[in-house]
Amino acid sequence: MTEANTINLPPVDEVLMQADFDALAALTEPDRPWTRRSFTPMFLKGREYLRAAFEKEGLSVRLDEAGNLIGRWQGSDDAAPVLMTGSHSDTVPSGGRFDGITGVLSSLAAVRALKKAGYKPRHSIEIVDFLAEEPSEWGLSCVGSRGMVGALGTKEFSLIGPDGERLNDAIDRVGGNSSKLGKVLREDVAAFLEIHIEQGPVLEAKSIPIGIVSGIAGIARLKVSFEGTAAHAGTAPMTMREDAGLAMARFILAVRDAAKAVKERGHFTATAGIIRVLPGGANVVPGLSEIIIDIRAEQDGAMDEFLARAPRLAHEAATEEGCVVTDFDILSRTFAVPCDERLRAHIAAAAEDLALETMSLAPGAGHDAAFVARIAPAAMIFVPCVEGKSHCPEEWTETSEVAKAADILAKTLVRLDSDLGKRL
Amino acid sequence: MTEANTINLPPVDEVLMQADFDALAALTEPDRPWTRRSFTPMFLKGREYLRAAFEKEGLSVRLDEAGNLIGRWQGSDDAAPVLMTGSHSDTVPSGGRFDGITGVLSSLAAVRALKKAGYKPRHSIEIVDFLAEEPSEWGLSCVGSRGMVGALGTKEFSLIGPDGERLNDAIDRVGGNSSKLGKVLREDVAAFLEIHIEQGPVLEAKSIPIGIVSGIAGIARLKVSFEGTAAHAGTAPMTMREDAGLAMARFILAVRDAAKAVKERGHFTATAGIIRVLPGGANVVPGLSEIIIDIRAEQDGAMDEFLARAPRLAHEAATEEGCVVTDFDILSRTFAVPCDERLRAHIAAAAEDLALETMSLAPGAGHDAAFVARIAPAAMIFVPCVEGKSHCPEEWTETSEVAKAADILAKTLVRLDSDLGKRL
Repeated sequence: MTEANTINLPPVDEVLMQADFDALAALTEPDRPWTRRSFTPMFLKGREYLRAAFEKEGLSVRLDEAGNLIGRWQGSDDAAPVLMTGSHSDTVPSGGRFDGITGVLSSLAAVRALKKAGYKPRHSIEIVDFLAEEPSEWGLSCVGSRGMVGALGTKEFSLIGPDGERLNDAIDRVGGNSSKLGKVLREDVAAFLEIHIEQGPVLEAKSIPIGIVSGIAGIARLKVSFEGTAAHAGTAPMTMREDAGLAMARFILAVRDAAKAVKERGHFTATAGIIRVLPGGANVVPGLSEIIIDIRAEQDGAMDEFLARAPRLAHEAATEEGCVVTDFDILSRTFAVPCDERLRAHIAAAAEDLALETMSLAPGAGHDAAFVARIAPAAMIFVPCVEGKSHCPEEWTETSEVAKAADILAKTLVRLDSDLGKRL
Repeated sequence: MTEANTINLPPVDEVLMQADFDALAALTEPDRPWTRRSFTPMFLKGREYLRAAFEKEGLSVRLDEAGNLIGRWQGSDDAAPVLMTGSHSDTVPSGGRFDGITGVLSSLAAVRALKKAGYKPRHSIEIVDFLAEEPSEWGLSCVGSRGMVGALGTKEFSLIGPDGERLNDAIDRVGGNSSKLGKVLREDVAAFLEIHIEQGPVLEAKSIPIGIVSGIAGIARLKVSFEGTAAHAGTAPMTMREDAGLAMARFILAVRDAAKAVKERGHFTATAGIIRVLPGGANVVPGLSEIIIDIRAEQDGAMDEFLARAPRLAHEAATEEGCVVTDFDILSRTFAVPCDERLRAHIAAAAEDLALETMSLAPGAGHDAAFVARIAPAAMIFVPCVEGKSHCPEEWTETSEVAKAADILAKTLVRLDSDLGKRL
């Protein structure tokens, strides 16, 4: 068929990859593993490691205007577009031993394997460590991938972080050039591939080593507040209360039931993660409650329907408890991003070559790939993580699991290097 | 019948009482009315006002060992026991324009009316401003009334307040003598009467001016924690969650339903006033929730049954959501205190003389009277408050409403002064 099937590609070097993981894990705030927050000195230490590791493999390393660290393997055809892969090296606080860095280090492992096999790509291959994928102290996620696709501008730059630093100044401080942002930086990307831990329990539960992402969910954040009447817990009779805590309870249960009911419409979640009940005295009937609902939908239509239905759920919960809905605000919404079908087919074929079982997954988490998809076909490969835990110190995946995805990545890059030349 | 029915007692002087309320209201932390926290300089200013007002009426004023401010009207019979009345002048933060001080100022108004009528009591009459009825920064309520009945000791003294001050040192600082506490201070009290705002909506809703308290509820505090599994809000499928926030929601609704079901057993309330959901991130399924339930019961049997049933409610809520109950602790419990029947009959008769409608009430709030009841027959008279609001800046009652209770108090003191001599 193609060269992809004829080249004798060795498995990625797990020992070297393990050493990379260990070295990056050591670059953490010591008192709260695993923390390497974007824009901090610890983050820059991580990038020093990556820069040296990229250079050791013969990649030319640069920072783009958005502060993304890029290692480039020059292809034989200067006119051919770029095959891009990678993820991010920053972390949430106290969690991120694998979230992000897995995609960078598995890309590095794939490049090592290709080099070891003597492969000479026609397309240039770039490994990208996107800047600040996790929500940073500036309150924005995916800073680097937004910047690459022209989605950073005055509004984002005016975000203020620690010590009053503006986001554009922070980008410049870590090596970007914010004055050049605001437009699409790259028109030469043929495909983007991102490996990531699943951050969910499905692959582990099904004992399937590889998830091929069907699409990245749209995310909405909803703020709902209920107002009742604060009253003395001892003197207000049970039948004369307007308890905003109970309205909250009814609402979050109704939201869950409604979310479960739309599950036939693809991946869909609704989560009440932030709940405040005020005034918060042991002897006071709650007079106010505030809930932030996080909603994720693989299909925008399912999100539309849920957001249309939610006001009634809130109103019913309030009315049952003699309360009123005082806030019903959609704080933010992003739309779903389907992954590229052709890239998914290549990944599936590569996995089949390696006799690795795959399944289709629709992650609810946001990823750099969702932004890069605006300028190039994009796809994601997921690896299982233990008990689905992520964004916490216990986040874990085995190097041997990551190696399987890296093997697929290497094989997919070869397939694309050949396929794109023939058919694009 | 008795002298009580023959003496020509004038109504209490509403103008003077209004001046007292206004003067005490002015003694507040200016930026958060109405705040006069126990042990603070503002609290001591309030007491300076009360001391002067008591002395102006010819009362001899002293502080007892528990730091209670006492104004005494010496009776003609040195051997006769004391008729005690009063309440407290301290407040919760940002609320207490009437809570507490109403009982002190209405007692003063009653004494003024008796003096104006030329009444000469046989029993000495004492007005008490109990120290620190509200939970203070030391975390204890009813400090003064506990002290009077011998319920303060080493355990309570070791409580630490602002600047590391021990409770016994704070009591001594405001004029008490903690070295003398730990035993019953008074064996000479014939009766205790306390006027208080209802702090609930019942009297106002029924347009009844006077509540005669049948008994003071027992109070229990219950801490319940649920543990589930924190997970990524986007990636954990709705069907694979162990959401501790939803377990909390089920539990507090079940607690409310159970509390309503026991309402035929007298006054009963159960309130989830403190609710915490952790880790509290918008994109994290709650892994932990903590609830403090406040339970009040007029009948100890109803409390017993509820506390016996609550573990099952918690277990069911947890199980339904795949969580476990990690804490089920009864943090504290006091028992119900029935008010003295004979005193209640005197109050009812005094109200009837004044053509004031009364109803029996069982308050859920704690009061100094519940402690004084350990050493003497005790009873309480409630006045309506607007919309049942209390412990908040909006707490309000009309002076004309308080005056009705003060009139009853004056008449009841006369009845007791006569009655106790005849029949005790």
